[in-house]
Amino acid sequence: MNLPQALQRYREEIAAEVASIVPADGHPLYESIRYQLGWSPSGLPHLGKCIRPALCLLACDAVGGDRSHALPAAAAIELIHNFSLIHDDIEDEDDVRHHRPTVWAAFGRDRGVVSGLALWSLAYKGLERALDAGVSPQSVAAARALITEACDQMIEGQHLDLSYETRGRVTLADYAAMIERKTGALVAASLQVGALLGGAPAEEIDRFGEFGRNLGISFQIRDDVLGIWGEGSATGKPVGADIAKKKKSLPIVHALEHVVGPDKNLLRHIYEKPMIDEADVAAVLDILQRWNVRYFAGGLAEDYRALAMAALAQTHITSEARRDFDELMSFILERDF
Amino acid sequence: MNLPQALQRYREEIAAEVASIVPADGHPLYESIRYQLGWSPSGLPHLGKCIRPALCLLACDAVGGDRSHALPAAAAIELIHNFSLIHDDIEDEDDVRHHRPTVWAAFGRDRGVVSGLALWSLAYKGLERALDAGVSPQSVAAARALITEACDQMIEGQHLDLSYETRGRVTLADYAAMIERKTGALVAASLQVGALLGGAPAEEIDRFGEFGRNLGISFQIRDDVLGIWGEGSATGKPVGADIAKKKKSLPIVHALEHVVGPDKNLLRHIYEKPMIDEADVAAVLDILQRWNVRYFAGGLAEDYRALAMAALAQTHITSEARRDFDELMSFILERDF
Repeated sequence: MNLPQALQRYREEIAAEVASIVPADGHPLYESIRYQLGWSPSGLPHLGKCIRPALCLLACDAVGGDRSHALPAAAAIELIHNFSLIHDDIEDEDDVRHHRPTVWAAFGRDRGVVSGLALWSLAYKGLERALDAGVSPQSVAAARALITEACDQMIEGQHLDLSYETRGRVTLADYAAMIERKTGALVAASLQVGALLGGAPAEEIDRFGEFGRNLGISFQIRDDVLGIWGEGSATGKPVGADIAKKKKSLPIVHALEHVVGPDKNLLRHIYEKPMIDEADVAAVLDILQRWNVRYFAGGLAEDYRALAMAALAQTHITSEARRDFDELMSFILERDF
Repeated sequence: MNLPQALQRYREEIAAEVASIVPADGHPLYESIRYQLGWSPSGLPHLGKCIRPALCLLACDAVGGDRSHALPAAAAIELIHNFSLIHDDIEDEDDVRHHRPTVWAAFGRDRGVVSGLALWSLAYKGLERALDAGVSPQSVAAARALITEACDQMIEGQHLDLSYETRGRVTLADYAAMIERKTGALVAASLQVGALLGGAPAEEIDRFGEFGRNLGISFQIRDDVLGIWGEGSATGKPVGADIAKKKKSLPIVHALEHVVGPDKNLLRHIYEKPMIDEADVAAVLDILQRWNVRYFAGGLAEDYRALAMAALAQTHITSEARRDFDELMSFILERDF
């Protein structure tokens, strides 16, 4: 799949803004941050897909705003996303991301935690640059409040995720409450902040929030599906990776709730074991297939995508911006990486 | 030693303000936060010594300000201090604080990290309440900038501290650079923010910063001395506690730099071992005594105290406020707890 036009347009701007926020040298702390951001010899970070900051800039453009007003916030959101990746990798004990060691694997667990904190703090500093770009202090404060609220939700979501690991029964509602916070909130805030800094009225900002929340949830469900059935070469993870890690992702939550009979007993037995071996992974994959769990998860992702599209349809944006959003949504939700 | 008058005056106000920032229920995340803040059945947190928020309020009073303007910032600083305690305990693997399990020991390491993040975020939310107290947006922004800068320094300091653990040679200058950030910055910011919100001009705020930075360093050196020679009943730690943990605190940094001859070889040999046993602790204590290290450390703490007092003498505060600061300084720097 080709990179959507909006990403092509924005990626360099975002990378340059991020580069201007992260100190080039000085404290050794920034080594690990620059490592996380994939700094290249050209002097610019080689960021990931930049989905969140691109959504932020696109929302600003879509409401007829001046994109330079939203750029500091977009970069701040990308830094916050990277902070969450560093901490997620520590908590999930994932030692590889994008085919190289994760920050904690390269620099140690404690330095990883501290690098995440420093990124978060840099993000807030970066946001203040909006004042230099001519944004009013009131708008910066409103953007800051939206971002802080999203961070709080993200932290709550992470906490829920951790608590589910040691909890016997996790319902679909529990799962939804968790991913709405852990993933939905920052995607929603990206769009809300973009619309806000683009000068949109409150109701329009709310519609973008609704769009983003559902987009984020759909994205996370898709991510959970890839965590089990993704092809290794594209995702960098083996099939069944999340099963081996006993992650209570959507397919497993659904299966533990809905599978009955001997399969149910086997599934519960496997998930009560302290460690899951290769044979267990194969058995779980079998059960998931017998009970059509992938089909269910795909359908749920589509439901949330439909909710996202309905919210987007309520916004008053140009047909050009609409095309960009559609293309970006396909890219995000139909990926196999 | 009796509690200084300033602490007696301010403690309840601070506790009430903290109580109004931390959500009473709802998310399970707040359980661990309320645990850290020592929530009592009366419905108020039982905070520690409250030194930082008290310094903040006293600086506001001392420059003739309205204390209610500084109260949200004082509470925010206490929350940030507690965030740093939670993360410090994780990184130092300390499982007891104030005679009860630390947050990570009670709730797990990952939940501890997340609780710290949530406290930090709550602190920034709490600070915004200054707007409701009638502080101008400009002053809130200036206070936020000072606090953010202090947090960045604290994070840098924590990072340095971690990097010293695995580094062979750590000089006194390295140590000073570390504690200036890790401890000095937040104490300085507490005073600067209090003076700022009390309406003091920029030069006066700077003097408070200089006072706080040196006070914080002196406090930390004193803390390092207590970490080795503190009486168990008062500190809750056995004599030699920091030696057993191989902490590169000031007495050890100094000894590794200045001890010569056979003692030097023995000391280096012990600090190169993966684990230090009881006999090693006794040997190190012997070496420190032979080389008068406690005397040197005490003298250094006094040097910084003198710098703090000189900076305080430059401020234009009432003699009443001056007495309060003197009393508070004695309490902080002469404690044996």
